[in-house]
Amino acid sequence: MDASYVNSRLFALRHSAAHLMAQSVLQLYPDAKLTIGPPIENGFYYDIDFGDKKFSEDDLVRIEERMAENAARDLPIVREELSREEARKRILAMKQDPYKLELLDDIPEGDVISFYTQGEFTDLCRGPHVASTGEIQNFKLLNVAGAYWRGSEKNKMLTRLYGTAFETQQELDRYLHNLEEAKKRDHRLLGRELGLFMFSPVVGQGLPLWLPKGATLRDTLTEFLKAEQLKRGYEPVVTPNIGSEKLYEKSGHIITYRDKMFPFMTDADGDTFILKPMNCPFHIEIYKSELRSYRDLPIRYAEFGTVYRYEQSGELAGMLRVRGFTQDDAHLFMRPDQLLDEFVATVDLTIFVCKKLGLHDYAVRLGTRDPSSNKYVGSDENWSLAESAIEQACKQMGLDFEISPGDAAFYGPKLDLMLRDALGRVWQMGTIQVDYNLPERFDLEYIGEDGQPHRPIMIHRAPFGSLERMIGLLTEHYAGAFPFWLAPVQIVLLPIADRHVEYAQKVREELLSIDPKLRIAIDDSSERLGKKIVMNQAQKVPYMLVVGDKDAENHTVSVRSRDEGDIGAMEIAAFLQRALG
Amino acid sequence: MDASYVNSRLFALRHSAAHLMAQSVLQLYPDAKLTIGPPIENGFYYDIDFGDKKFSEDDLVRIEERMAENAARDLPIVREELSREEARKRILAMKQDPYKLELLDDIPEGDVISFYTQGEFTDLCRGPHVASTGEIQNFKLLNVAGAYWRGSEKNKMLTRLYGTAFETQQELDRYLHNLEEAKKRDHRLLGRELGLFMFSPVVGQGLPLWLPKGATLRDTLTEFLKAEQLKRGYEPVVTPNIGSEKLYEKSGHIITYRDKMFPFMTDADGDTFILKPMNCPFHIEIYKSELRSYRDLPIRYAEFGTVYRYEQSGELAGMLRVRGFTQDDAHLFMRPDQLLDEFVATVDLTIFVCKKLGLHDYAVRLGTRDPSSNKYVGSDENWSLAESAIEQACKQMGLDFEISPGDAAFYGPKLDLMLRDALGRVWQMGTIQVDYNLPERFDLEYIGEDGQPHRPIMIHRAPFGSLERMIGLLTEHYAGAFPFWLAPVQIVLLPIADRHVEYAQKVREELLSIDPKLRIAIDDSSERLGKKIVMNQAQKVPYMLVVGDKDAENHTVSVRSRDEGDIGAMEIAAFLQRALG
Repeated sequence: MDASYVNSRLFALRHSAAHLMAQSVLQLYPDAKLTIGPPIENGFYYDIDFGDKKFSEDDLVRIEERMAENAARDLPIVREELSREEARKRILAMKQDPYKLELLDDIPEGDVISFYTQGEFTDLCRGPHVASTGEIQNFKLLNVAGAYWRGSEKNKMLTRLYGTAFETQQELDRYLHNLEEAKKRDHRLLGRELGLFMFSPVVGQGLPLWLPKGATLRDTLTEFLKAEQLKRGYEPVVTPNIGSEKLYEKSGHIITYRDKMFPFMTDADGDTFILKPMNCPFHIEIYKSELRSYRDLPIRYAEFGTVYRYEQSGELAGMLRVRGFTQDDAHLFMRPDQLLDEFVATVDLTIFVCKKLGLHDYAVRLGTRDPSSNKYVGSDENWSLAESAIEQACKQMGLDFEISPGDAAFYGPKLDLMLRDALGRVWQMGTIQVDYNLPERFDLEYIGEDGQPHRPIMIHRAPFGSLERMIGLLTEHYAGAFPFWLAPVQIVLLPIADRHVEYAQKVREELLSIDPKLRIAIDDSSERLGKKIVMNQAQKVPYMLVVGDKDAENHTVSVRSRDEGDIGAMEIAAFLQRALG
Repeated sequence: MDASYVNSRLFALRHSAAHLMAQSVLQLYPDAKLTIGPPIENGFYYDIDFGDKKFSEDDLVRIEERMAENAARDLPIVREELSREEARKRILAMKQDPYKLELLDDIPEGDVISFYTQGEFTDLCRGPHVASTGEIQNFKLLNVAGAYWRGSEKNKMLTRLYGTAFETQQELDRYLHNLEEAKKRDHRLLGRELGLFMFSPVVGQGLPLWLPKGATLRDTLTEFLKAEQLKRGYEPVVTPNIGSEKLYEKSGHIITYRDKMFPFMTDADGDTFILKPMNCPFHIEIYKSELRSYRDLPIRYAEFGTVYRYEQSGELAGMLRVRGFTQDDAHLFMRPDQLLDEFVATVDLTIFVCKKLGLHDYAVRLGTRDPSSNKYVGSDENWSLAESAIEQACKQMGLDFEISPGDAAFYGPKLDLMLRDALGRVWQMGTIQVDYNLPERFDLEYIGEDGQPHRPIMIHRAPFGSLERMIGLLTEHYAGAFPFWLAPVQIVLLPIADRHVEYAQKVREELLSIDPKLRIAIDDSSERLGKKIVMNQAQKVPYMLVVGDKDAENHTVSVRSRDEGDIGAMEIAAFLQRALG
């Protein structure tokens, strides 16, 4: 959670809402034991020991009603500071042992011990809070989950009650609406419904299989970015999915990244292979395969490289956290005097990509070095050069950026694009990193104009991040209704009866003769037209072209747009012009 | 070696040439000990123990001269059959112990023991031979290598002399010419010279890294086949490079294929992952993810799938035998009544691909079941159906095919395309296999018109075989001078002086505005024009467009074709029309 949120009134409001919930719970369930109840990113929760009681949605409603009553009482929320002994007595008086006593014991000797009280309710708490329960007006309890005391499965399972609160009813309503919307847009559900991807237990967790429509989406994104990269002077390379241990020893990944690597493979000859977690060392090997001159730089190697990272099985989440994924990776090797231009060009490409994908709402965060820390590698001079180059690049592009000191990678400063999707959720995508470390570790060189060897700088970048993550995001952003150029099936022809299938095929041929890359299906199933329309609408195909006798006669198609509904009969070329916009 | 060769006169002639060489060796080096000297695919060799003598190319010349003399003597080659005791005495008399005595001991009791004699020379040998040394006219000794006695490194290292012989001088000349040509065309050398691919010891043996031009070649081939497959009703899928052990247990690969698999990866949860040696089980998982109806079939899943096979390090050979490669794989699932049509369509695609690649010379080999063997799975009925479908398909297509009984895979019959390259060498590519086994093992089903579950048939096919192998073949076939559509750089612009660079860029823009997919480079290095031409000719770029003052003035380019040389100045559109043919 960022500092501005933690210091905001909203944060205190949500913290007070957690207390209001706890107060109401104790009124309704006097034997309940409270544990911890913090504000979180979009609301708050409280973990409570209800003993043997089984919780239901109805209980949430009762608690919520009681909360409204306690809010209406407009009870002042009062802070007190107590000695450890007084605190102990207070907890026992409230019958909040043993959990609150354990929390009290965690407070270091000498620290302030504070309680907050509203009416009959009092709670060990650091605060801060709003002044009175009357300020907590716009709240909602959301759901119930289980959580172990102190997060350890050796401890008792508690009941976690989630809720949220906002300053205004309007904000709360929007949040609740987006929450509903997010459920409908969940890419894991849509991915299956739209035939994009699947998981299989016999293949393995976190290892997606891309179904035909999802593979088409990948291909479309890949072709788009490949073509754009070629235009911008990138060169394609292809490297293996495994590499020898030696490569990752040299890169330093074995030390810093081992816990994210799959188990190593050691053969009978004693050679050890590693499933690659990143592509950089391979691109570096290609750079090193020839003597490079200052005239050769910049060199920009791009690869849609599939990498594997051993995420804990509990952390896997649809396409957002997988064990195998394809990065739209590239590594740029340049002279120091080229850094500014290359950085500008990279940011420009990243923003170009986002706009093409319909992601227009983004913020730029610039991670710089914390000058007081010594975790960074490279000379002060290089860091200044790089940080000022990045800053200058952002200014040159008129970007509104926020500097986040201490957020640099250990090997160089970086720029993150924070994308806001249609529901206002923020996704960190498109990182661009400047790297002085790997060129050093791999002893990279180019021969300068002075005939002497110099060290190049590297940029790592991936505008999509990964195909998996980007398709996950796009699926939710568009709720599966992809724009025409991205839609796996762009046009579906619906012959009204079997005798119209032939004309449908003719229409397809004609469309393909205008643009051979169009993705056109014919739904010649035996279903009735009404059913076909419902099914293809559910598949979110941008255009359905119904064809019957009249169309065949007049050489037209009857167009149903996914977004605009029935827009009538038109000639084939006229339709296509409209579709391509 | 196929049976027709083993039974041919050429085979006997080469065998006799080996004897002629051995006779000449013993005349020149009386202490030499002969071991074995068989005919091989393109010639013959003899493994000889020369004691401490170091062999040089000069020695080959001397032996070759002596062979010509012994041939001129026109010595009759006479067969004798001896008892084991007589054979023993003969060997000792020739001072050919201990090797020939060991060979004699290998002859089973009761078998005929024969010797062949020409002049003073006699050799334990099964034959057959030509009638007289005079018949051996067109021969050539080729090179010297080391070889262990009986192939075991525990035994003594012998000297292996290689030679070849043909019926006519013309055939010999052509063979020697092709041999020279093959050396120049070696894809490992060309791959490096043309910047197609590289290997790196820190990445690992047999794991190619594709350089920009090679990656472009891959992309070009991939895009071509992807587009063609889409036209032909294939659907793309993408699956991970690793899968759980369970998947390969089910497929049977763990039992039948384990020695070709990389070491398994077992994580802390006890889950075991395997680097995939083949894509089939993944495509099967996708098939199984939904209930399929007879109306859904055929389903054709295509994937450019990168697989890993653990080849012994001694067996790795450039791009022809690697440990990681990308198959242009597809799996077709069909009803039995669709087998004939699908097989015809698959063969048609394979032949279409070969022709597009300029590989017009091929033979078709049909591997059927050996009815006397019981290594095959599946019912007799299915086998008959499949074999007759394949045969019928070949006949329907007017293909000249050879049936090779016993050459089927254990799970079904197959068709191999044997391609002959520009040097007359045969490459086995493009296998198409019919499979009844995996549908059975994975319990695949579709619901038939009768409402009952039925088992589909699978076809496995890969027209390229793999991108690695196909690019190796194409590099040698074209000696790196790829046809225009395949060339990684199709056109290079050569500005005569720096002041012409701007016009060169204008020409490139203009060409790209006609066809945005053209691959055009500008050589703006500081080299003189003559040097630029030599270097780009060495890179085998199809067209060099020299641009100078006159061209800029007249809006022309001065065209140098790789294959036809200087063809003069022409307008840009006229040039492109010519290039695109």
